Amino acid sequence: MKSDVEIAQEAVIQPITEIAEKLGLTADEIEQYGKYKAKITLDAWNRVKDRPNGKLVLVTAINPTPAGEGKTTTSVGLADAFHEMGKNTAVALREPSLGPCFGLKGGAAGGGYAQVVPMEDINLHFTGDFHAITTAHNLLAAVIDNHIQQGNALDIDVRRIVWKRVLDLNDRALRHVVIGMGGKPHGVPRETGFDITVASEMMAILCLADGLEDMKKRLGEIVVAYTRDGRAVRAKELNVTGALALLFKDAIKPNLVQTLEGTPAFIHGGPFANIAHGCNSIMATKFALKFADVVVTEAGFGADLGAEKFLDIKCRFAGFHPDAVVIVATVRALKMHGGLAKADLCKVDMEALDKGMNNLLKHIENIQQFGLPAVVAVNAFPTDTKEELDFVKEKCMDLGAEVAISEVWAKGGKGGLELAEKVSAAMDRPSCFGCLYDVNDSIPDKIGTIARKIYGADGVVFTNDAKKQLKEIEELGLDKMPVCMAKTQYSLSDDATKLGCPTGFTITVRELKVSAGAGFIVALTGNILTMPGLPKHPAAENMDIDENGKITGLF
Amino acid sequence: MKSDVEIAQEAVIQPITEIAEKLGLTADEIEQYGKYKAKITLDAWNRVKDRPNGKLVLVTAINPTPAGEGKTTTSVGLADAFHEMGKNTAVALREPSLGPCFGLKGGAAGGGYAQVVPMEDINLHFTGDFHAITTAHNLLAAVIDNHIQQGNALDIDVRRIVWKRVLDLNDRALRHVVIGMGGKPHGVPRETGFDITVASEMMAILCLADGLEDMKKRLGEIVVAYTRDGRAVRAKELNVTGALALLFKDAIKPNLVQTLEGTPAFIHGGPFANIAHGCNSIMATKFALKFADVVVTEAGFGADLGAEKFLDIKCRFAGFHPDAVVIVATVRALKMHGGLAKADLCKVDMEALDKGMNNLLKHIENIQQFGLPAVVAVNAFPTDTKEELDFVKEKCMDLGAEVAISEVWAKGGKGGLELAEKVSAAMDRPSCFGCLYDVNDSIPDKIGTIARKIYGADGVVFTNDAKKQLKEIEELGLDKMPVCMAKTQYSLSDDATKLGCPTGFTITVRELKVSAGAGFIVALTGNILTMPGLPKHPAAENMDIDENGKITGLF
Repeated sequence: MKSDVEIAQEAVIQPITEIAEKLGLTADEIEQYGKYKAKITLDAWNRVKDRPNGKLVLVTAINPTPAGEGKTTTSVGLADAFHEMGKNTAVALREPSLGPCFGLKGGAAGGGYAQVVPMEDINLHFTGDFHAITTAHNLLAAVIDNHIQQGNALDIDVRRIVWKRVLDLNDRALRHVVIGMGGKPHGVPRETGFDITVASEMMAILCLADGLEDMKKRLGEIVVAYTRDGRAVRAKELNVTGALALLFKDAIKPNLVQTLEGTPAFIHGGPFANIAHGCNSIMATKFALKFADVVVTEAGFGADLGAEKFLDIKCRFAGFHPDAVVIVATVRALKMHGGLAKADLCKVDMEALDKGMNNLLKHIENIQQFGLPAVVAVNAFPTDTKEELDFVKEKCMDLGAEVAISEVWAKGGKGGLELAEKVSAAMDRPSCFGCLYDVNDSIPDKIGTIARKIYGADGVVFTNDAKKQLKEIEELGLDKMPVCMAKTQYSLSDDATKLGCPTGFTITVRELKVSAGAGFIVALTGNILTMPGLPKHPAAENMDIDENGKITGLF
Repeated sequence: MKSDVEIAQEAVIQPITEIAEKLGLTADEIEQYGKYKAKITLDAWNRVKDRPNGKLVLVTAINPTPAGEGKTTTSVGLADAFHEMGKNTAVALREPSLGPCFGLKGGAAGGGYAQVVPMEDINLHFTGDFHAITTAHNLLAAVIDNHIQQGNALDIDVRRIVWKRVLDLNDRALRHVVIGMGGKPHGVPRETGFDITVASEMMAILCLADGLEDMKKRLGEIVVAYTRDGRAVRAKELNVTGALALLFKDAIKPNLVQTLEGTPAFIHGGPFANIAHGCNSIMATKFALKFADVVVTEAGFGADLGAEKFLDIKCRFAGFHPDAVVIVATVRALKMHGGLAKADLCKVDMEALDKGMNNLLKHIENIQQFGLPAVVAVNAFPTDTKEELDFVKEKCMDLGAEVAISEVWAKGGKGGLELAEKVSAAMDRPSCFGCLYDVNDSIPDKIGTIARKIYGADGVVFTNDAKKQLKEIEELGLDKMPVCMAKTQYSLSDDATKLGCPTGFTITVRELKVSAGAGFIVALTGNILTMPGLPKHPAAENMDIDENGKITGLF
């Protein structure tokens, strides 16, 4: 059996000019980055902005398990299936981060015969978007410390600077640092830390901005610190909003690549799916919707986090109306949700499957709460039995969801035709999408709605710290924004060990943070690590490039 | 009078494909980065490597003064003049750093009618080379701290980790930091700091490597720390040399842009001119020499630092034989060297000029010591008088150097024709270039030779610290490499206040550092700041980009 990298390296990759042409982009409307990557100019938008949108399909999943679900693979394969059917299709995905690539994962861009290429480039520097974020984020940080060093005219409280620094790497030693050591010429000593770039609020901003002007406005709204009398200090008060926007002049433009089967792929932005909303940029999705008739996109983690935020944050901001939602599951993962150990997943265990199915069924119900049709994609494994598959199908159909077996990993687009047919049928039916809550509800009400309706919780508890922060956010008048839930991805609850479909639990909000530039309030229900560490043997140890440019170990 | 940015924005810029064609590069041999920038593939090298080299002209200068000399402007203008004369010409320059751009300088790419374009891109992320260095440098740093966290099998002395972290920004608060705070899961606490990316040894390596294989070898040789029993720990012992090389797979390829007059410009790499050697990459120069008949290149700071290191380090490593050296001076700067205050520079003061001329004359003599012809380019200012110019000419010609008045700032290539004629004549004469010292000489001998022959010093003094380091370097067997002098750029001596041509002084070496990957020993003669700070009002405050993409304040 061939590895992902072997399949990718054997692929006949088309010049990006041809992929662009497929979408009806003119030569002047793309900027090439090498032969197989391009950015799409903002001028292209002006030409197409009055066109009707294509159909929008969201791919999400059950709560992830160590068994693996294959959400990106399914997204790519589904797009390839539509492409195979002759539809003008595009897939819109997130850019991977260098941190996990050198850390645990060694790169990610789908798998098997459902991948995006050129994988090496997408997984390394790509078109430099993340580097632009790192630079802009750290420029703002440097300007804050410089402001204090030069006299602190804004009276910033050095104990309440909430803007940290970032690097697009896994580096635990930078989580907690003391800077400004060495005496007077070298800054004011203070505690701070580094996050990974994908956790930067600027990443969320890049992904939620409607264009460069909107981005500039959002950059200016970032709350970077508080004064000694408790006033929120915005980035714009430091007079570098223009410089920050300038650093994003190219990063704001969506990137175009392709799948192994030549389906156009928009890969742009990659915010964390916990402290941020976890989807590719609005820019990429809105461009894709004008140039393609069907756009398949993806949200991070399971549907409780990813789909909820895609729908309540991204679609709310951009005015997108999705036409169908695909929920990816595997029989193996469902059995894990039903209590079966990883080592036993090859065994048929209908009781475990029955119990684990509740996780999937809850997600179907959730999608239906948004007024959208759900289609279940069962990502096929050779060990799946007919009995198991039939059982899954039946249970889902009882809830009104279509089910298809997906074999895109092994067969590419051809393995996704059944899924594409079911999705086609679903998206051709009229739907009445609506967000879950009103942004003008109070923060406890918004979180309560999500917790009860999506997670199945009995209610929400705020810690004393969170109550204090709530009061402050309300006093600052920053509470009328959507809520971005930061919760474990492994459970519908806030307890990672509660698999399946738990009931009789409450959600505990431990911290509330304002991302005023991104335009949401982050509600943290546990410790979320925003700077990963490296494992004992980082994936980087396996990587190499030889004198002929042949790359090994990247994925 | 138009500003640099107005001139640049009014320029009719040619598609980079046409510039490449001018050099005889095929469409397959370049990788576009947008419409006006490209990287040249390594395959192109294989096609042309057996061709004879073109002529190589180095542009250097007197010791810099606040009056400004215009070295980059002269380099660009001289190349444009050769281009105007119908010669197949290229200019090879360093990439600018984002730090100074947002700090004091607001961008740099020549000036007046002698600039390289697209200036905005060159001054911002360009093709991402510096971001690749930042990432690779910090990956290695993260791997070192991870190694210690995971058990420290190599027995690294945490007090002797010499590999810091870098950012391509001016950020004084990061000069001295304590990392690894927060308890056991978050690393081992230790003191360290951040340098600006251009000061990274990886920048020097990128600029001295002969190709990707050589780069990988050099990356592996970097000394990152010492063990508790004093052994030097190399990067290769951490098993990530392949991953580091992978991060440079595109950065190693030279970048191609153009001057305002359409002369091909190779802009690649930009190491510090004090703790590193201060010239663009060997890759760029060697490519340029195969594709152009005349290549004009530049070295950092004055000739005592820049030209000496260009000749003794870069040319030694690459086997380049320069054909002529241009020394840039202005009448104003020479008067400053003669003791005139900046406010009085408009005045004719023949005594000050006479005294200051000694600086220029010493540099001419120094170039001649390398066996190379020196041509003086007097960068013309409207306030220069005929009497002053004639005086400068006469004094230089007495030493056997040709002199030309350069008006490239005001007139572009046409203003450099006289200079180009003189340089042509010089480079057509046979020369016998030789490096100043043998790498197998002892470190004190190598430094002594440079100090006496180039700086005009009576001798060299080593501090006790430096003596200790010298002994250690010799014991490690790392002393048989060229020396990279880190000295003030403002004086031929190591005292920035001694202008003109000082005599009767000694050079004090305060620190010796091994850059085993780059392949040189750094001799520091004073405090060299490797992480600049921002001024009270950073240049970033003036920058903006409007909804039409129009950029202001960048230079």
